[in-house]
Amino acid sequence: MRKPKWVIEKEREKRAAAAETVWLFGIHAVRDALLNPRREKLRLVLTKNASDRLSDALASADIAPEIVDARKFAVPSDPTSVHQGAALEVRPLSWGSITEVCAPRGEAARELLLDRVSDPHNVGAILRSAEVFGARAVIGTQRHAAPETGALAKTASGALERQPYLRERNLASAMTALRDMGYQLIGLDGEATAELGAICDPEGPVALARGAEGPGRRELTRKTCDALARIPAQGEFGSLNVSNAAAIALYASRHG
Amino acid sequence: MRKPKWVIEKEREKRAAAAETVWLFGIHAVRDALLNPRREKLRLVLTKNASDRLSDALASADIAPEIVDARKFAVPSDPTSVHQGAALEVRPLSWGSITEVCAPRGEAARELLLDRVSDPHNVGAILRSAEVFGARAVIGTQRHAAPETGALAKTASGALERQPYLRERNLASAMTALRDMGYQLIGLDGEATAELGAICDPEGPVALARGAEGPGRRELTRKTCDALARIPAQGEFGSLNVSNAAAIALYASRHG
Repeated sequence: MRKPKWVIEKEREKRAAAAETVWLFGIHAVRDALLNPRREKLRLVLTKNASDRLSDALASADIAPEIVDARKFAVPSDPTSVHQGAALEVRPLSWGSITEVCAPRGEAARELLLDRVSDPHNVGAILRSAEVFGARAVIGTQRHAAPETGALAKTASGALERQPYLRERNLASAMTALRDMGYQLIGLDGEATAELGAICDPEGPVALARGAEGPGRRELTRKTCDALARIPAQGEFGSLNVSNAAAIALYASRHG
Repeated sequence: MRKPKWVIEKEREKRAAAAETVWLFGIHAVRDALLNPRREKLRLVLTKNASDRLSDALASADIAPEIVDARKFAVPSDPTSVHQGAALEVRPLSWGSITEVCAPRGEAARELLLDRVSDPHNVGAILRSAEVFGARAVIGTQRHAAPETGALAKTASGALERQPYLRERNLASAMTALRDMGYQLIGLDGEATAELGAICDPEGPVALARGAEGPGRRELTRKTCDALARIPAQGEFGSLNVSNAAAIALYASRHG
């Protein structure tokens, strides 16, 4: 006997929802997530030792840990990182729409647009810089962007819990929405003739777009920008790592 | 019969020298090293395909490749990176002494001092920023610093071949040598009250010191600085990744 259609559908939805959970690991990332009331927590697996180290966060978190033997710590984690005996399964954070998160409300708001920046170490570092320099959001694409993984959480060093990271289906539409809200859209491009400090309005809302290294920004994103600008360099050779370029651009957009 | 002492000594020296070779891998890192006449090349192992892709660099390089089958590519490479069928064994670059490399010669020279920054991804990104912003050298310690490895070369994206990276036995002595040459020594510290742009002389020689994350800068390095300064932040939380902090500090030391 075949399963009824609605059962198959429900099973598929369940699988899709299950696929959208993330395992965070490491003492710092797990502590930050436990202390975040907005974070939906599904399963917490700790060694006794990690549980002791996290006792402060456990006291205020709404989830009970499963204590496991360190030698039997069978939780999916990034092979290049250490879990330190702490793993927490969560749902990705939901920050709301671009209109909700990015409305400038009369301030010199800043946004970072990332076109196909997929390396979690770069995106993690960018989330930290965005938080420090008060960007409303880091905006990437649903496809080709670094997903919210344990490796990203680890390099973001807590910023993943606090810094809005929106992943949009269509980056050009997101840029149009920002322009409609009054944002100046500046594409960062080492080949541009204008310097960022010269064309960026320090007092107004500004969105800075940066492409991945290698293929660089796509033509569509480039065309959608109001202007292209470069970060002034002293040397004749070389180029900035994408997270360093994003950090300097955020700084220069405020300080010239 | 026992070996004579001088034979044992010579064998030990040979082993020590052999241990100081580095395998660079990946098309980009290998091409950059091949095109660098200062780079002492020992062994080049390529697949046929990689050899074709590197034909331009091979034409001008003074080493003949060993062409191997892609399935038998048995060269030591970083497990987290791909070698792309290209590996080159080299000696670390010799840049000369601090006095030779860093003499300001009447210019607004810049140096970056790294105290125990050991992550090759961070040091690689820092070398790129140092090259772009015209720092004379990036100066780390012999111990506790990221060694010149294939992983570092890969993240440095060519800058390792061009940007002096000095590893000193004693960082405090290096700082004293810089001060004697007229450098202002500024320690980067998120807790400092002064802002970097306010205390840094944009026209004079400046050395910026940054510690690793976590333990941070050691007390000795902190005491050896002329002043501590912070990068101004908008947000109340968070901190910058070490390579992003170094990049912004270099930028801000010139542009305010």
